[in-house]
Amino acid sequence: MFVKTLQLSISSSKKFEIIDITSEIQNLIDEIKISEGIVNVFTKHSTSSILINENEEGLLKDFENILNDLVKENNSYFHDNIDNNASSHLKSFLLSSSETIPIMNSTLDLGTWQSIFFIDLDGPRANRKINLTFIGE
Amino acid sequence: MFVKTLQLSISSSKKFEIIDITSEIQNLIDEIKISEGIVNVFTKHSTSSILINENEEGLLKDFENILNDLVKENNSYFHDNIDNNASSHLKSFLLSSSETIPIMNSTLDLGTWQSIFFIDLDGPRANRKINLTFIGE
Amino acid sequence: MFVKTLQLSISSSKKFEIIDITSEIQNLIDEIKISEGIVNVFTKHSTSSILINENEEGLLKDFENILNDLVKENNSYFHDNIDNNASSHLKSFLLSSSETIPIMNSTLDLGTWQSIFFIDLDGPRANRKINLTFIGE
Repeated sequence: MFVKTLQLSISSSKKFEIIDITSEIQNLIDEIKISEGIVNVFTKHSTSSILINENEEGLLKDFENILNDLVKENNSYFHDNIDNNASSHLKSFLLSSSETIPIMNSTLDLGTWQSIFFIDLDGPRANRKINLTFIGE
Repeated sequence: MFVKTLQLSISSSKKFEIIDITSEIQNLIDEIKISEGIVNVFTKHSTSSILINENEEGLLKDFENILNDLVKENNSYFHDNIDNNASSHLKSFLLSSSETIPIMNSTLDLGTWQSIFFIDLDGPRANRKINLTFIGE
Repeated sequence: MFVKTLQLSISSSKKFEIIDITSEIQNLIDEIKISEGIVNVFTKHSTSSILINENEEGLLKDFENILNDLVKENNSYFHDNIDNNASSHLKSFLLSSSETIPIMNSTLDLGTWQSIFFIDLDGPRANRKINLTFIGE
């Protein structure tokens, strides 16, 4: 058994962007040679999220629309007096800062229609950090 | 310390179904003899979710109703042009693909009113797969 | 590699309360001397949640308001016939029972604007239990 910590750096190019990081994580699994265990994928930013779902263009647009329905951009939020990104934080609050994913046979053990997404809710940003913690053997 | 990976197969009998998998997971804990650690419960399907809450019939119906309020079935979603299950994916997006639960004294260390649920958002399905990764000693 | 399980006891003083537990968890990291790994933070109560975001007073008020918009207090819920706290359970259902957070250099590897919150959705309560499972070396 061992633990190994790595970090991904991601840049986003617009306010709301869903970025598929599955292959980057699989590449690191190949590199560190973990055969069985878990990887915890954790975003270090409170205006972003880590989620798992299907990478289909229309669906990702639907998801952006649903989030905008649930957390209106044009509301008057208290946090906007401090920093003009309350809606981004509130979406992140409703979603999740991390996901923990099983590794089997040196492979992310995802379903056929699952990808791992970093979601920037307050881009564009040049340097978003994602912590990856691998535990296993 | 060891890691052990197992899988549950679940079938659902209707479109929206909440299935309590607590006792199945506890049985596997007994079988593999892990006394202290964690279990990561991960659904391999992007139209389903893993959640923890109280197993009370009325509450589970309330939860179904709330999800239907938040993600309307009758909207026109882009993903429905590809596959007619956008609302199921969108509910899964808002919920979670996994939960990680502590194990103490060879027992799931849940609260009195907590059960572990697999939620099928796009049933009925004959063969849903849930990965269980046990890490501990 | 080792696993170590500890528990926090928290009391809340009102119906909805967000309590920052970051420093309590960091203190325990110092005590048990884990340098690299993860901590799983798990609430044992199905009317509460564990979340990570920015500890800014206005934002926390915005988050309370958004939750009240999404899950109305004055609806007629089935669960209210059993126990008058359906809306608290439903908010917990939409949020998360746990978060898993990386530890590096004997420190919670959070971003600058991230705190770990216990959210009581059905307070005030004298004795809320949060399980902490540390895995690493």
